Amino acid sequence: MEKKSGIILALDVKDHDKALEIVKKLKNLIDAVKIGYPTVLENSMNIVDEISKTMPVICDFKVADIPNTNSLIAESVKKHGAEGLISHAFTGSDSLDAVIKSFYPGKVFAVVEMTHPGAVEFMQEVSLKLAKMAIEKGVSGFIVPGTRPERIKIYRSMSKEILLLAPGIGVQGGEAKRAIENGADYIIIGRSIYEAKDPVQKTKEIIESIS
Amino acid sequence: MEKKSGIILALDVKDHDKALEIVKKLKNLIDAVKIGYPTVLENSMNIVDEISKTMPVICDFKVADIPNTNSLIAESVKKHGAEGLISHAFTGSDSLDAVIKSFYPGKVFAVVEMTHPGAVEFMQEVSLKLAKMAIEKGVSGFIVPGTRPERIKIYRSMSKEILLLAPGIGVQGGEAKRAIENGADYIIIGRSIYEAKDPVQKTKEIIESIS
Repeated sequence: MEKKSGIILALDVKDHDKALEIVKKLKNLIDAVKIGYPTVLENSMNIVDEISKTMPVICDFKVADIPNTNSLIAESVKKHGAEGLISHAFTGSDSLDAVIKSFYPGKVFAVVEMTHPGAVEFMQEVSLKLAKMAIEKGVSGFIVPGTRPERIKIYRSMSKEILLLAPGIGVQGGEAKRAIENGADYIIIGRSIYEAKDPVQKTKEIIESIS
Repeated sequence: MEKKSGIILALDVKDHDKALEIVKKLKNLIDAVKIGYPTVLENSMNIVDEISKTMPVICDFKVADIPNTNSLIAESVKKHGAEGLISHAFTGSDSLDAVIKSFYPGKVFAVVEMTHPGAVEFMQEVSLKLAKMAIEKGVSGFIVPGTRPERIKIYRSMSKEILLLAPGIGVQGGEAKRAIENGADYIIIGRSIYEAKDPVQKTKEIIESIS
């Protein structure tokens, strides 16, 4: 995942042809494509194979099962060509470890904090513990809240090497520039780009704003 | 999901034909089939459609995303014919609520406690809070640890109506009889059944032990 622009496209588009078309348009401007379960369930893992031929794919599956099942999921994602996999950490160190080992040498990104209101109910109070455990286990990076730049700063202070990927930019209210200034390596943007009248122009504007 | 035997088969079999064959063999003895991501990723959601034609399917997707993504996952699972969907509660009440609303009238089962060692690190201490919140939100049932019958008793005491589904029976160490005695409505069994020399005979023995 070579860093060109610092932008990861959240491709939450179910329609196969439309999804592929967006990737084709933006591939020279973005660093990776993030694909989640809604898109995979409506198609199949073949869409991951297809896009992986063009550019790095990060499967956003928020893996959250027992170690054995996590391993099976990670093996499948690896087999279909993805370079990155997003996993939860709250299910414990053995579960996260299973993802990392089974996905190696692919990059695993642990969710340490989420952007929606309900995330404060149970996850917020353990988020720094999740981050500490995830570093110990050897993840490549964290998913951090693009809507809360002051929190990104805290995660940055925990490690210089860890990659910080910030979703929640654009429609959800996060500002690209502030996320980057506070330590994010990559910003994850979806609707603001692919629902724009001119996605290429929109992406260029965002790149301009963070460079 | 009519209760005949109290047994839900955890069909963690990736091979399509083998999976269908096991269902065919056991369909008169079991109440439902639980399918997880490893099986779906190796095939596609079509396997859920196929098995749903024969008997109730519960998708064990441990849904754990932001509300909007959770809704999209739940809609997809509903569209493909599943009657049940397993969701995490840890990601908060709005996330769980999105699953319940989008999956209605299907049954949502919330994970309140898991069976693997790492589950004690972050989930254990909030498990009763998760259960309380899940009841308030209107889930149909809980996923409870078949390996810890004393915990099943506690969840049973929280509600008479809530369905309690207990995985971890068999290979993972839980005893079917003790789980049922302590309040479980259904036990979830996988490998002990489908890896048995005679899965039909094995299932009959388990039914005998709990009736």
